[in-house]
Amino acid sequence: MQVSVLRLGHRLVRDTRMTSHVALVSRAFGCQKIYMSYLDNSIIKTINDVNTRWGGNDEFEIVCVSEWKPLIQSWKKSGGIIVHLTMYGINVNDMLPQINIKKKILIIVGASKVPSEIYSLADYNVALGHQPHSEVSALAVFLDRLFDGRELTRTFKDAKIRIIPSQEGKKVKFE
Amino acid sequence: MQVSVLRLGHRLVRDTRMTSHVALVSRAFGCQKIYMSYLDNSIIKTINDVNTRWGGNDEFEIVCVSEWKPLIQSWKKSGGIIVHLTMYGINVNDMLPQINIKKKILIIVGASKVPSEIYSLADYNVALGHQPHSEVSALAVFLDRLFDGRELTRTFKDAKIRIIPSQEGKKVKFE
Repeated sequence: MQVSVLRLGHRLVRDTRMTSHVALVSRAFGCQKIYMSYLDNSIIKTINDVNTRWGGNDEFEIVCVSEWKPLIQSWKKSGGIIVHLTMYGINVNDMLPQINIKKKILIIVGASKVPSEIYSLADYNVALGHQPHSEVSALAVFLDRLFDGRELTRTFKDAKIRIIPSQEGKKVKFE
Repeated sequence: MQVSVLRLGHRLVRDTRMTSHVALVSRAFGCQKIYMSYLDNSIIKTINDVNTRWGGNDEFEIVCVSEWKPLIQSWKKSGGIIVHLTMYGINVNDMLPQINIKKKILIIVGASKVPSEIYSLADYNVALGHQPHSEVSALAVFLDRLFDGRELTRTFKDAKIRIIPSQEGKKVKFE
């Protein structure tokens, strides 16, 4: 499955940590790319460090785009679909079965206010419930549902460190 | 199902926004309480504001505890179980079927380093995958799995505002 994320509305400093977590979720939960329209070096550094240590340099990357609209338009032109995560959308429990997962998917995750145009550009406006929570949780739950839990057992290439799952405490293996 | 969250290791200012999101996820995804060992007024205000606007004043609350250990001990004494979310634990795909969901569950979510004692006090050390992501995403996916998606359709009592799910944009109803 080809899935990427577009992070919209990132505000420097204020959103750095949240967007880092959005990027880490994108990586850990099976996406190939996260597109960002703001260049935030500390997030690029976080992802590069994680890729180096935990693997996946060729499997996940941050891509900076100067404008989001051409990305969405070219994504749709090439046969991909757009999923916008918003608490105002249709509940994921009802919407997910309608999404054609054979197409490549671009998931839009907003920080502050999202331009209203996004609602009409999106093929699916999907709500992870209709209560306020977090873009980090919304993205994670959506991806977990989309990949049916399989993303949580994936391994990354060229990892320097791997966890040995344990009930007793921290066990790691250095490669 | 009786489920609450214990947030450990919250650092003032640095973690305020992350812990706010942990609290919002706890509320939106079906927990009754979040216990915090640090008094952070801005998080209390966030939750009170959300409860007032979106409902659930009697359904979700923040409880400040001076020490976490007596809470864990009394929880276990009264027949409850402790689930610690950690990337070093056993994968949720393997662990969840073993958890007795008829008992009341306290979910421990750490911020910075968690005391190693937590691993032995916990009945289950559960990993939402073994890659770095976020305590917000870990908690949300765990709760979504635990409640089997039902939490995303719940309604809260005495809400002043309700979302009318829509594909077209923001539709709300003021009560």
